[in-house]
Amino acid sequence: MTRFALTLEFDGTPFMGLQRQAHGPSIQGAVEAAIHRVTGETVTMAAAGRTDAGVHALAMRAHVDVAKDIAPFRLMEAVNHHLRPDPIAVLDCVAVPDDWHARFSCIGRSYIYRIANRRAPLTLGRDRAWLLAHPLDADAMHRAAQHLVGLHDFTTFRSVHCQSASPVKTLDSLNVRREGEAVIIETAARSYLHHQVRSMVGCLALVGMGRWREEQMKEALDARERQALGLNAPSCGLYFNQAVYPEQG
Amino acid sequence: MTRFALTLEFDGTPFMGLQRQAHGPSIQGAVEAAIHRVTGETVTMAAAGRTDAGVHALAMRAHVDVAKDIAPFRLMEAVNHHLRPDPIAVLDCVAVPDDWHARFSCIGRSYIYRIANRRAPLTLGRDRAWLLAHPLDADAMHRAAQHLVGLHDFTTFRSVHCQSASPVKTLDSLNVRREGEAVIIETAARSYLHHQVRSMVGCLALVGMGRWREEQMKEALDARERQALGLNAPSCGLYFNQAVYPEQG
Repeated sequence: MTRFALTLEFDGTPFMGLQRQAHGPSIQGAVEAAIHRVTGETVTMAAAGRTDAGVHALAMRAHVDVAKDIAPFRLMEAVNHHLRPDPIAVLDCVAVPDDWHARFSCIGRSYIYRIANRRAPLTLGRDRAWLLAHPLDADAMHRAAQHLVGLHDFTTFRSVHCQSASPVKTLDSLNVRREGEAVIIETAARSYLHHQVRSMVGCLALVGMGRWREEQMKEALDARERQALGLNAPSCGLYFNQAVYPEQG
Repeated sequence: MTRFALTLEFDGTPFMGLQRQAHGPSIQGAVEAAIHRVTGETVTMAAAGRTDAGVHALAMRAHVDVAKDIAPFRLMEAVNHHLRPDPIAVLDCVAVPDDWHARFSCIGRSYIYRIANRRAPLTLGRDRAWLLAHPLDADAMHRAAQHLVGLHDFTTFRSVHCQSASPVKTLDSLNVRREGEAVIIETAARSYLHHQVRSMVGCLALVGMGRWREEQMKEALDARERQALGLNAPSCGLYFNQAVYPEQG
């Protein structure tokens, strides 16, 4: 039995989420099915994060245990072949120790959120960003974001379906910058509550539009209740970016 | 009657090309139909370039003549509304003099071509670039490209269906650079032969892969025959970028 660590890129648009679902396509289901076609084995894939329906990934990390004697490169090529036409690709595949776990060994997760700040409907960028026509002040958003960095009770920014034992998390960074007509939000933390990134982005957008003062971000955090949430940003703008493991330093 | 200049962005994937077609969807047909829904008028749209099936545009320029008394902003908003769900957007709309012509007044056209130089299938970037797994030497491609800049007989790089009176054109620039896993080719000229950009890119890719020496680009040009063409790059990587008009300096 060999444990293979996979780096996955995917367009989340046609999927109900990363985790296998009883009713509908998932990233996990598609990758497991492709591995079954390659190896004849029924595997269970573990992943660094559990992205929701419509959320994308630039470099999700995952692992599977395979009995078949196969080189990592050949496994990657064969899985990519069998994943077609699903918009999922294995970017990298390496053999790892049996105690390496894509989810439990992961000590850092970063996300990117893209806002298309323009009036016209999206064409080439459709399903790749949140379209907001109102001009956004990215500098004000960045300043407001700093209220959320650090150790806090993030109850305000937590989905009612969140299964985390505690609402207390440490947010390592939350940065906002403008790139032409795009406003890019990047965040890093060990872990997040369910919907935390999208909830934070939604409130930052209110600041960017001038509908919230910068300090309202802190007031919302301090309220520690879901009612204080301004807005939940849509999934189409969210990208799982990187997973960090101890050996990467 | 008012002449409106439109700036169009579109994803060319679902269209048979920019020009109206008897059998299949086109950019021109979709825009004309949207304008008909707004104004009740049957208009004919002229455009700076005639892109092929699958070719995209970042800022195509076009014009239409409309009798209805309507402000440019309202026309743009209404046309964008009626273009849904087609992946075409009007980015800008201004009233222009009657002698301004999107095609005949245009004195410069620039294109961008994107190559995704990686092994894994495309997911988020599907239909947005030409996927080439073989590592490309972008510097060698850039040097080879300089053989094509200037006034030349581009017969080698011309489709057999090209309707241009002469194969002699002046290529103002052809630049190649690497951006991470992408290789970006940018070109500018007053006008091009049919398939000229894709034909040039195809041969540059052969240079990048090491299958052509840099000097073979010049030999192919000097041959002045289609048989000397190495490869025609696919349409999915090609973007009409900018159209230049005299008043823009």
